[in-house]
Amino acid sequence: MTTAKRVRLNPQARREQLLELGVRMLTTRTLDELSVEELAEQAGISRGLLFHYFRNKQDFHRAVVQRAADDLLATTAPDTTLEPIPRLTLSLERYVDYVSKNYRAYLSLVRGAASGDDALREIFDRTRDALTRRITDNMAVFGLSDGPTERLLARGWSAMVEEVVLAWVSDPQISKEELVSVLTQTLPAVLAARR
Amino acid sequence: MTTAKRVRLNPQARREQLLELGVRMLTTRTLDELSVEELAEQAGISRGLLFHYFRNKQDFHRAVVQRAADDLLATTAPDTTLEPIPRLTLSLERYVDYVSKNYRAYLSLVRGAASGDDALREIFDRTRDALTRRITDNMAVFGLSDGPTERLLARGWSAMVEEVVLAWVSDPQISKEELVSVLTQTLPAVLAARR
Repeated sequence: MTTAKRVRLNPQARREQLLELGVRMLTTRTLDELSVEELAEQAGISRGLLFHYFRNKQDFHRAVVQRAADDLLATTAPDTTLEPIPRLTLSLERYVDYVSKNYRAYLSLVRGAASGDDALREIFDRTRDALTRRITDNMAVFGLSDGPTERLLARGWSAMVEEVVLAWVSDPQISKEELVSVLTQTLPAVLAARR
Repeated sequence: MTTAKRVRLNPQARREQLLELGVRMLTTRTLDELSVEELAEQAGISRGLLFHYFRNKQDFHRAVVQRAADDLLATTAPDTTLEPIPRLTLSLERYVDYVSKNYRAYLSLVRGAASGDDALREIFDRTRDALTRRITDNMAVFGLSDGPTERLLARGWSAMVEEVVLAWVSDPQISKEELVSVLTQTLPAVLAARR
């Protein structure tokens, strides 16, 4: 049997393994370049078995992007034991590290938002909403309420951070410390435009 | 002759007419929905003649997106007879009006940046660079020099404005006056994070 050396995993564990492998492979290639054949080979399973877990290539791509989004949200989760500004600094540090380490995967998430695939766009929108809510749920910290203008500014600030970090990762002309420090200061600055 | 009622135009004027028609058609549909057949019909020319001006559908789409980008840059050109803040307010007002009126065309420009089409991404990048340069060329106004951190922040601010205006156009919960006023205040606020 050619499967002699293959590890037996229960379905849930196998699915987890495939998603983790998919996200890891995305660190060095775009979503379009993520081949189902290569993944099956690296996982030590047949292409047929892979499609037992994911109906088709598109389904697999969506699941990988969703996993990347979940990873991002988990990694940047605010440490509520910290005061607001150090809490924001730590989340931004982790965000910069995540995007640096998973540049391609992150780009696939962002690009998905603009692609013709509605399911990918929905994953992106939900992720941005979750990131934005972390700010709007804590408006009181900045002496503000959670109104429509505040929500627009919080959403805009998230887009600014994304653009700045992507530009920095592809051409880092300043230190990570300066980047994180400046970005931390922009949130209260942007929200203060509301006062 | 079936062309009896058709207007004769010189090649340059015809090309202009086709691009203007293309941008106008984009106000109500996405780039993908922009059909060459419908455009030829509306212009009163044959499909064959259309391809005399544009090699193929992709070429035509790129030319239309480039025209939309040029329109945007021209419409929002800073009025240098004004002081910095009123100048910024006027540009932002015109930007909001442009995106409101040309929502689909603008979205095609932004989405192009994320699409697999490198030529569209280049148009977007050049447009964002030009918009960002309007800020970085005038850093002295904010008491700043034109360094790498300032450039990152200016680029980030452009992304913020884009996100906020797109969100506002699709669901305008505040007045245009408040939107423009708040956005005007965010630029000095963001750049001040640098000081």
